[in-house]
Amino acid sequence: MLSRLNVLAVVAVSLSAVSGQTFRRLGACPTLGCVLPPDQQDFLPGQQFDIRFEIHAPKNGSEAFNDGVPDEKFTATIAKDGGKPKSIAEFFKLSEPPIEKWNFTWFEDLFAQDANTPSLVNVASKIYRRVALYEPGEYTVTLKYYSGETTTASWVVRPLATKKKAKNVIFFIGDGMTTNMITAARLLAHKTINGKYQSLLQLDKFPVLGHQMTHSIDSFITDSANSASALYTGHKTTVDAMGVYVDSSPDPFDDPRIETIVELLSRIWKSAWGAVSTAMVADATPTALTAHTRSRNEYAELVDQALNGFTNYPWTKMDGPDVYFGGGAEQFIPGDGSYEGKDYYDEFAKKGYSISLNKTALLAAPNDQKALGIFCKNHMPVWLDRNIFPENLQKLNNTPTGAPGAATDLPGLKEMTLKAIDVLHKRSGKEGFFLMSEAASIDKQMHALDYERALADLLEFDDTIRATVEKLKSLGELENTLIVVSADHGHGFGKLSTPSRCPSFLLTLTLLFTLDVFGSADTEYMAAQEDDRAKRNAIGVYERSGLSQYTVPKPGVSYNTGPNFPVNWDPRYVIAAGLGANPDRREFYGVDKSGPRTPATRGADGEYYVNPKDRPEGFVVNGTLPTDSSTGVHSLTDVPVYAMGPCQEAFGGTYSNIDIFYKLADCLGLGHATNKTMGEPSKPCKGRGCKPGGRPRV
Amino acid sequence: MLSRLNVLAVVAVSLSAVSGQTFRRLGACPTLGCVLPPDQQDFLPGQQFDIRFEIHAPKNGSEAFNDGVPDEKFTATIAKDGGKPKSIAEFFKLSEPPIEKWNFTWFEDLFAQDANTPSLVNVASKIYRRVALYEPGEYTVTLKYYSGETTTASWVVRPLATKKKAKNVIFFIGDGMTTNMITAARLLAHKTINGKYQSLLQLDKFPVLGHQMTHSIDSFITDSANSASALYTGHKTTVDAMGVYVDSSPDPFDDPRIETIVELLSRIWKSAWGAVSTAMVADATPTALTAHTRSRNEYAELVDQALNGFTNYPWTKMDGPDVYFGGGAEQFIPGDGSYEGKDYYDEFAKKGYSISLNKTALLAAPNDQKALGIFCKNHMPVWLDRNIFPENLQKLNNTPTGAPGAATDLPGLKEMTLKAIDVLHKRSGKEGFFLMSEAASIDKQMHALDYERALADLLEFDDTIRATVEKLKSLGELENTLIVVSADHGHGFGKLSTPSRCPSFLLTLTLLFTLDVFGSADTEYMAAQEDDRAKRNAIGVYERSGLSQYTVPKPGVSYNTGPNFPVNWDPRYVIAAGLGANPDRREFYGVDKSGPRTPATRGADGEYYVNPKDRPEGFVVNGTLPTDSSTGVHSLTDVPVYAMGPCQEAFGGTYSNIDIFYKLADCLGLGHATNKTMGEPSKPCKGRGCKPGGRPRV
Repeated sequence: MLSRLNVLAVVAVSLSAVSGQTFRRLGACPTLGCVLPPDQQDFLPGQQFDIRFEIHAPKNGSEAFNDGVPDEKFTATIAKDGGKPKSIAEFFKLSEPPIEKWNFTWFEDLFAQDANTPSLVNVASKIYRRVALYEPGEYTVTLKYYSGETTTASWVVRPLATKKKAKNVIFFIGDGMTTNMITAARLLAHKTINGKYQSLLQLDKFPVLGHQMTHSIDSFITDSANSASALYTGHKTTVDAMGVYVDSSPDPFDDPRIETIVELLSRIWKSAWGAVSTAMVADATPTALTAHTRSRNEYAELVDQALNGFTNYPWTKMDGPDVYFGGGAEQFIPGDGSYEGKDYYDEFAKKGYSISLNKTALLAAPNDQKALGIFCKNHMPVWLDRNIFPENLQKLNNTPTGAPGAATDLPGLKEMTLKAIDVLHKRSGKEGFFLMSEAASIDKQMHALDYERALADLLEFDDTIRATVEKLKSLGELENTLIVVSADHGHGFGKLSTPSRCPSFLLTLTLLFTLDVFGSADTEYMAAQEDDRAKRNAIGVYERSGLSQYTVPKPGVSYNTGPNFPVNWDPRYVIAAGLGANPDRREFYGVDKSGPRTPATRGADGEYYVNPKDRPEGFVVNGTLPTDSSTGVHSLTDVPVYAMGPCQEAFGGTYSNIDIFYKLADCLGLGHATNKTMGEPSKPCKGRGCKPGGRPRV
Repeated sequence: MLSRLNVLAVVAVSLSAVSGQTFRRLGACPTLGCVLPPDQQDFLPGQQFDIRFEIHAPKNGSEAFNDGVPDEKFTATIAKDGGKPKSIAEFFKLSEPPIEKWNFTWFEDLFAQDANTPSLVNVASKIYRRVALYEPGEYTVTLKYYSGETTTASWVVRPLATKKKAKNVIFFIGDGMTTNMITAARLLAHKTINGKYQSLLQLDKFPVLGHQMTHSIDSFITDSANSASALYTGHKTTVDAMGVYVDSSPDPFDDPRIETIVELLSRIWKSAWGAVSTAMVADATPTALTAHTRSRNEYAELVDQALNGFTNYPWTKMDGPDVYFGGGAEQFIPGDGSYEGKDYYDEFAKKGYSISLNKTALLAAPNDQKALGIFCKNHMPVWLDRNIFPENLQKLNNTPTGAPGAATDLPGLKEMTLKAIDVLHKRSGKEGFFLMSEAASIDKQMHALDYERALADLLEFDDTIRATVEKLKSLGELENTLIVVSADHGHGFGKLSTPSRCPSFLLTLTLLFTLDVFGSADTEYMAAQEDDRAKRNAIGVYERSGLSQYTVPKPGVSYNTGPNFPVNWDPRYVIAAGLGANPDRREFYGVDKSGPRTPATRGADGEYYVNPKDRPEGFVVNGTLPTDSSTGVHSLTDVPVYAMGPCQEAFGGTYSNIDIFYKLADCLGLGHATNKTMGEPSKPCKGRGCKPGGRPRV
């Protein structure tokens, strides 16, 4: 029986595969009958989720079927370990949900897009909300439709994990941080003598190293919404989505959800938790801890979800984080950017939060109270401008209150993280805490090819981890705390997700950031040459790459930034680094003292060309990305995972990003066999993010 | 006293640092008094080495000193752990060697090179040959010269390691293999369903993962000679050098040496050992096991050194490898390419080797006899041409006998490695064996931006490791064998090291190979567009990258290459990948069916431009490397290390490439406290590589 079903499924796959791999009708659904969560998904025992079925009837295009009328009489069953199938409603003891109907369009390939000939698909669907599987094993879900078509999904519920082995977990995410960049950062800040480093990164001292694979569920390049979601839920999803499998309906808040690690921690252990980021707090990496949406761009709703939980359908009751530090005042200042125009400083204060709007207030905030800290309008200014070129801060109009002027009393990632630990430690009691701390601008500055700013933020990240180890030691918590450091593959701004209210540190052009250093550039020589090809002769490779001059003291230059940062950011011989995917750009290498870089700007024809003001002394390199793209691209590479503390040994070797969730969940005892921990549902719905909306799917 | 010496050393450093970081007078010697091995070097107890001192007197240039007359009355001492210094001769019980004198020239920077104004340096030197330090601890070497100048070197002798913990070691080197490329290879060959890989690489199954830092002693970008040397000796050195610290003398064979892992194994345990490579056997990675030269280009001498040991000064007596398989017949066929014009097939046969010149002979060779296998003239053709496009093999003129025609009965890395294990297992007895197996063309094909050929050789490498695990299991040796897999950062052909006799797989243009995949390319759409910028719109990023189509079966396409390789190498949607450092190139992505790629060719002005015949349907990307360069560049990134078997736990975390040697040496019990194992010296000198030659230093 099973083998026949599989044969049918294969036939359906090959029928629709002709429509092209890169323009999928719906991620995770290559056939006309969709099961969400789809085939091959893993679950933690007791983890809540929703199940959606969709039947597609393409009206036109290569897949046109049944004159565009979707089958509303589809049936679905679930069976455990080859046992007797039961209907979904019967198995989960739910009443049968109503049929929903909608339609959507898509382009089958680039030729269809150029010709503007979309394909229309009519849809019939059902969703079963807030279910869970408690017994480890294999489950088979079978969807039957169109009198004979079948889609099956095999789900695996992983082993129980009821014991909490680590009191605290701190999960550091260096957004977009690859091994190449870690190597480059080490070179800049740490001195070698005859090939031997005289000091090392804190990351270099971690006892356990692993690699995680970061691909999405339906494409091999990920963005940071779906990669963060994989890390926090154990379920891969689609680009831009967090905490849901993406359906084809118009509403960005009705997609089938999956419970996150902090929802599980809150429900099962009532642990304190916090998020710290140098991005705006509504950015994907911090917000994916609580978000359930297929659209990372719904910033205002996401801040409300973080504070009040997910409220339009029953879900885990959440009371907001114990600590929430970062940028992103637009979603807090009452007005267009905030949810229902409300003042979210007030909303947080009403729930008992201390509110800090600068570093001075942050350091003085009480440790026994929930803490919100929002330090500027959008993403926070980077380490290099805060520490080496502070005059660049003055150019901004980014106060967290919305008053004109620049935010200058800014904490760094280290100050925010250490304060977060103080608050979480004080508030957590014996159940311990969970903290996510993100160095967001490693990614953001790589997007702009601003190598020094990216690497400086990576060094700040490493310095923060070093200080965290010291802090935990002083609190007597080092032995009780699992520290995991990894990357989630960053945050590429999409065409539609560009934060239009960002005053200055907005990056309009986003790029592949597989930075690697391939030699040195003699800036003096390059500046003296007149044409692009002659300028390339300033690049020194192999023995001409020489040694790092960033660690060589220069008379009169002193930044007082301590031993883990370069002593000279602006030597004559700088690193020559490069990327494989970029728009047109000009390279001179070396630090930009005037502020973050804008390598390409839009021309009169609407396409992107070299920014005439960027690095005028350098040479032009034309691009490999689409010329009209303001969409960032990330790369495929596995990223490193560093672990130290209880359960550290689980993080060696190579594994999928979802496995990080299961390793953390196992260490935190989050896999339970009974539903007694499910607790009361979230409060009833109200407000904009509440009901299925009429907004078109984009 | 020590602190004063250090102050003086610092002054000397800063005096000469003005001459620029990228054009060093002599690697590992920034002052005018050189100690080789220099400051900060580590040693294995009992490891043999030479000590050279040089006093430099620059005649002109910014460092001009003492009218170009070097101090011949310099003195040198050594002291252990702060004890009483003794003269070098007294400490090692040697007679005082004679003063040597020579001169050399160098360019202080690119401006000096353009103006052709070299700086001349006169040198006085002494060398103390074949010494060893037996007691763990710190040693201070002090060189005094010019009536008050001092250079000090601090050496650390690591702990004793006398117990052999692993019977066998197999060290796999994927030349130039980075994490990015491993990720891309997995994508090509292994299928995902909804984000879950249905099969994995063998590398993914290794229990322990580490990262090694690969920089050279005197530059941050390495080549594969000095990186292989670091892995095999525990001592970093200079680009192009192997088994020596580079001095400034004209002779490429008189530089101060350091004993290699196979020399130690032969001397201490009389272990069997072998080297297998898809490169010519005289290439850096295989030959660095036995080589002592600062010039990797002395291929003929290096093959003689491999067979007969190092013979111009006393050294460990070596009898040649038990197994030597690869390409490189030029150094075996009697004539210009071979040492003293001799027939090296005969030379090996005279020492009892079976000689195999094709796959059929290889498989039939006796397992109890030493085995030489040379299968073609230069580097071996790659997996993709051997397996998918065999018609390309016919285009070559590369028989191992030198007869006209193509070598077509070719083994792959897997066949060579499995046969090597059979021979080594049979010959090794209870002392076990050491095997180095290298996938050389991962690097070589990346140099030519031939992504598919590079990734196919990476997949062959992984398949070889998988087969090795099975083979060891069947021999009952899996539990006794430490398997370490890493990269040595490949083999970039230098201007002077390009093997001019290579018939076809010669890569004239070499590049940074930090390949990473950043999306997919719609080859059909790209071919249909007319200009470069429109062609870029065929690139699909994020959700438009889609899934790998290399694992989707295509009717009528079958290669019979097994489950660990792609089922379709030529889909419509191909991976879009890129590099950060390259000459001018044209990108179309997708496989080149006609044979390995030549992305750029020399123009009438002697500079490199896009090869007009390469990928005419693609778009042009101009370069970032010097325009007249045929020199390859490698990148900085740390590379992964995988370990399985006895001592595996030592390979987790992050460390220097030299630490791999010390980890292997510890596991193999190669650090001894007495000199009784030093044994008889190598046989007296004869032949071309024997005496200091008159050839200019290049």
